[in-house]
Amino acid sequence: MINDLEKYLCLQGSFSKNDLYRISSLAVEKKLSRNEFLLHDGEVCRHKIFIVKGLLRTFGMTQDGNEHILKFSPENTWTLEKESYDQQTPARVNISAVEPSEVLLWTKPDFERLIEELPPLKRYTEKFTAQNIYSSSQRLLTTLSATPEEKYENFIQTYPQLLLRLPLKMIAAYLGISLRTLDRIRHAQL
Amino acid sequence: MINDLEKYLCLQGSFSKNDLYRISSLAVEKKLSRNEFLLHDGEVCRHKIFIVKGLLRTFGMTQDGNEHILKFSPENTWTLEKESYDQQTPARVNISAVEPSEVLLWTKPDFERLIEELPPLKRYTEKFTAQNIYSSSQRLLTTLSATPEEKYENFIQTYPQLLLRLPLKMIAAYLGISLRTLDRIRHAQL
Repeated sequence: MINDLEKYLCLQGSFSKNDLYRISSLAVEKKLSRNEFLLHDGEVCRHKIFIVKGLLRTFGMTQDGNEHILKFSPENTWTLEKESYDQQTPARVNISAVEPSEVLLWTKPDFERLIEELPPLKRYTEKFTAQNIYSSSQRLLTTLSATPEEKYENFIQTYPQLLLRLPLKMIAAYLGISLRTLDRIRHAQL
Repeated sequence: MINDLEKYLCLQGSFSKNDLYRISSLAVEKKLSRNEFLLHDGEVCRHKIFIVKGLLRTFGMTQDGNEHILKFSPENTWTLEKESYDQQTPARVNISAVEPSEVLLWTKPDFERLIEELPPLKRYTEKFTAQNIYSSSQRLLTTLSATPEEKYENFIQTYPQLLLRLPLKMIAAYLGISLRTLDRIRHAQL
């Protein structure tokens, strides 16, 4: 797993061999089976998470048991519940594995120390946070304004690699439309 | 206007008199009439905006002319289109005045210089950015998962001071529900 992380980081910024070693040395490896949770709502998000292999989802659950998916996190991406992690307060969402997955975890104190010590990691993290803000803002606009057809089209363009890996009900829960509407859209395209 | 900004910043962080003077000295004052635009989609967002008085809205427009409101920005808040401002690319949203408003503007190079020079401003800006991320994430979850009734209730709790200042069609455009549904909910509460 560590090798995969180092390969990925080399492509992202100017990390020295020593930087990569420091980052890796504080990571804890974890394997997740399908549907295993890394975070339950109500718990505190204590780790920064890098997905080496597999696919996670971040989702809220309404009282009637319906899932609403905020984010999919495939291999070579990071995830966490930012508010809960930053402020060590109970999370309002869940994070769990869509597929059997392999992740690396850093505790908050460890990752904060790394950011202090390693300016390239600080720059990389800031850039990554900014990109998350841009895509959240775009996501909100699409969720508010697009038709179900446009939402699905947008999803195919943005995540072509996820289309075959996700059950349809999860795509519907991400788009904020019913499974029935999603079925109708897909049939109309055949 | 400058006085109002200085009063506001004094409450937010440990700014020295000199810090406040530096921040104020680079601000440009601007008055907006109702419905006047500060940013049109397709333009580059060139300024950081502080609202001294009045109320702005950030919104997208669909081809059929429907407005979808991402954010309301009342007095003593900041606004901009972050992706467009950071990367100097065309904005995907509009920013305009809901009420006659008074704002202060800083160009990006000026504000970046201030952040470099003044550590309290850097800390304040980082804190503010993080809070924006938390509320965007919460907003997306509500938009995806809440019933129209819950969305309206949530809006009343979060923005009680805006309720009487906004036309109903803007509240509906923010909640992502039709004006008819909003009318129904409000009548049911009487």
